[in-house]
Amino acid sequence: MSLQKVYEYIDGHSEEFVQDLVRLVKQPSVSAKGEGIEECAKLVEELMAKMGFSTKILKGRKGNPVVYGEKLSQKSSKTLLFYNHYDVQPPEPLEEWKYEPFSGTIADGKIYGRGASDNKGNIVSRLKAVQAFLETTGDVPVNIKFFIEGEEEIGSPNLEPVIKKFKKLLSADAAIWEFGGTDRRGRPHLYLGLKGVLSVELKAKGAVKDVHSANAPLIPNPAWRLVWALNCLKDGEEKILIEKFYEHVSPPSSEEIECLKTIPFEEKETKKELGIKRFLRGKSGLEALKTLLYEPTCTINGLLSGYTGKGSKTVLPCEAMAKLDFRLVPNQSSEEIFKKLTKHLKRHGFGDLEIIKHGATEPTKTPISDPFVKLVAETAEKVYGKNAVIYPLSAGSGPMHLFRNFLRIPVVSVGCSHPEANAHAPNENLKIESFVRGTKFIATLISDFAQ
Amino acid sequence: MSLQKVYEYIDGHSEEFVQDLVRLVKQPSVSAKGEGIEECAKLVEELMAKMGFSTKILKGRKGNPVVYGEKLSQKSSKTLLFYNHYDVQPPEPLEEWKYEPFSGTIADGKIYGRGASDNKGNIVSRLKAVQAFLETTGDVPVNIKFFIEGEEEIGSPNLEPVIKKFKKLLSADAAIWEFGGTDRRGRPHLYLGLKGVLSVELKAKGAVKDVHSANAPLIPNPAWRLVWALNCLKDGEEKILIEKFYEHVSPPSSEEIECLKTIPFEEKETKKELGIKRFLRGKSGLEALKTLLYEPTCTINGLLSGYTGKGSKTVLPCEAMAKLDFRLVPNQSSEEIFKKLTKHLKRHGFGDLEIIKHGATEPTKTPISDPFVKLVAETAEKVYGKNAVIYPLSAGSGPMHLFRNFLRIPVVSVGCSHPEANAHAPNENLKIESFVRGTKFIATLISDFAQ
Repeated sequence: MSLQKVYEYIDGHSEEFVQDLVRLVKQPSVSAKGEGIEECAKLVEELMAKMGFSTKILKGRKGNPVVYGEKLSQKSSKTLLFYNHYDVQPPEPLEEWKYEPFSGTIADGKIYGRGASDNKGNIVSRLKAVQAFLETTGDVPVNIKFFIEGEEEIGSPNLEPVIKKFKKLLSADAAIWEFGGTDRRGRPHLYLGLKGVLSVELKAKGAVKDVHSANAPLIPNPAWRLVWALNCLKDGEEKILIEKFYEHVSPPSSEEIECLKTIPFEEKETKKELGIKRFLRGKSGLEALKTLLYEPTCTINGLLSGYTGKGSKTVLPCEAMAKLDFRLVPNQSSEEIFKKLTKHLKRHGFGDLEIIKHGATEPTKTPISDPFVKLVAETAEKVYGKNAVIYPLSAGSGPMHLFRNFLRIPVVSVGCSHPEANAHAPNENLKIESFVRGTKFIATLISDFAQ
Repeated sequence: MSLQKVYEYIDGHSEEFVQDLVRLVKQPSVSAKGEGIEECAKLVEELMAKMGFSTKILKGRKGNPVVYGEKLSQKSSKTLLFYNHYDVQPPEPLEEWKYEPFSGTIADGKIYGRGASDNKGNIVSRLKAVQAFLETTGDVPVNIKFFIEGEEEIGSPNLEPVIKKFKKLLSADAAIWEFGGTDRRGRPHLYLGLKGVLSVELKAKGAVKDVHSANAPLIPNPAWRLVWALNCLKDGEEKILIEKFYEHVSPPSSEEIECLKTIPFEEKETKKELGIKRFLRGKSGLEALKTLLYEPTCTINGLLSGYTGKGSKTVLPCEAMAKLDFRLVPNQSSEEIFKKLTKHLKRHGFGDLEIIKHGATEPTKTPISDPFVKLVAETAEKVYGKNAVIYPLSAGSGPMHLFRNFLRIPVVSVGCSHPEANAHAPNENLKIESFVRGTKFIATLISDFAQ
């Protein structure tokens, strides 16, 4: 059976794989700062070309390059698409790193560096799984397509036109999303959906310049107007007050609730880590998990007005701003919510506030009942020897909806990460053991998908 | 009559007076930055000593030196006290100055520089008025005391212990406060009182660190708590909601209203300058003036939480803060309001918010009926040849209450400034003509006070 040979190839070449990952980690690619983007895209393309992939840079009117690569199978008409991203979060705060964030240092059986886990480890793991087939069998069991973008960490603002433009090229039967891993007990985690997110900024303006606060009895204060406007969006019980905000929100289905019951929710650990005694509204256990995954939110990300230095200053500011994000659940849409927000503020007398839309992704999920979900779960259980944990929805966001809506395929997210990987944080790393096991998982998945 | 000789002396020495003011302006003394304070105090002391004053540096346990100087009269037991400050506001924004802010440049009949008007011009004008008597008569008509502090621009936080400690030394029959001048029509303005101010900072805390906003359904957001806490302090109609906040507030007396009617309130000009169409609650004319001077306020001076840079960041902040000031009217006290604020926040479920008190001064006023007010007004009208404009209260604040409460004397504020003096702003200046006329005004006041 060829999978045995594929596993042997992976074990025999794991050091070489690690070196390729180290090379990729050493190439900074911080989309937030536009740092090293072109260089990293080139490196990813080179890695694929070396394996015999046909590659292509997909470009919309603007945005960082998307690296596309494909390898067609000689015997299968089925196609599996992989979504990944080569861009990374900024490495700051630098002083908290044990090793230089772009050094790719190997220590304690781990590869350290920004992007090691999120998402370069998954890129290399997936490419190497395909390489293992090519090197041992001279073919791939199914057609393989890689879509590796460079703006995931800044909200994929330019992706939709690219997906639309290259819809045909990207056609596939199913897709594997970018992230995932195992938990402390070694169980593989699968994610079937993502929340949407709508990011906005509210700006209130007063006089044309800051004035002395002695004038407060007569001169409008935009900081107060902002506070009152925000206050009309959500009450102290966390209920969002925008008219018809919850209109399209559904509770989890009974099938989804069964799924939730199997999710190991580390409530105590989370509270301890964050130094909080209770979750909002005292939610706990299954209720907390349902809230986390199935409730939309309205979050203040930032506030700024007037004097914010030491001590006091008797100033009446001329501007005030708040940054907000709304996490959206399936059947809500960012456009709908933006309209409702605008209307609500107007109706409550805050029509003068400027509302700036910073970005949006839509909620989406693949049904638990989709055969592809079953296939991925069974493969994961086979490879890891433990029950798979299925998240019917994740609290996070990403451009998954573009693949669901335009390509109309099931999408499941799995990956080779582990619980102490520190994605988005200092000392990000990837365990070499997880990396190698994850590579075998992807190889097995490709093989099972071909059946 | 000796006053004629005094006037002649002032006219004959005005160039020398201007040079002394230029010297003082050239010495930076920015209390907010601790810049040049000791040097400026020394220079002020030197100016007084040169005139034959007994001088003394008054010090509390902390704070910038207060320069005290006195010249006793050989023929009068009456004492007139002058309150001034040698510290100045920071000169920023520097790029908006026509001349270097500490150059003391003379141009267009004006002395330009930070402090030229506020408050060094008044210091020199007053000292020179006294000098004119000494040089022409060899005596002063009444005992003269100067109290020149160095922390007025930062709220005089260390003054109370000094006043208490040197209460006897400072004993006087009346005091002239630091500021004032003439308006566009040449009418002298008198101020009989000041509002108090209580500056506080509210701090809300959540988790021990910022978290990803995907966690918003469960993790408390201090930015929201701050918004809700602020919202419970004041409503959209500008009504302060703190229980019993208005308990001790009185409307202006009929005598005060008569005074207000004579105040030239530049409503149209103010609106145009600030780019606003209407004052809060549509107030206008006498109503606006009553509101400005007799209503206490609760003002947001600053807001800060989470991400405030460009674009968006999906962060749930762990801290949020607001800076507030309360302007207080006579019979309110900062301690009372601080207690009521604390109680109110607790009662509304915000007892976990930290409330930091940054500073406070108390409201105070000298009654219009005080004979000293009449004397100052009559003298002003005599010198300026126009009706005096009397403000029974000013919208601003300062440590006047310490002089009123501990020395128990009438205090009236007058000065040698003019409408385009730009105090606290770029291109601060003092018209030489106003400076010289103001010096004669003070000399006449000393003479009249002696009668």
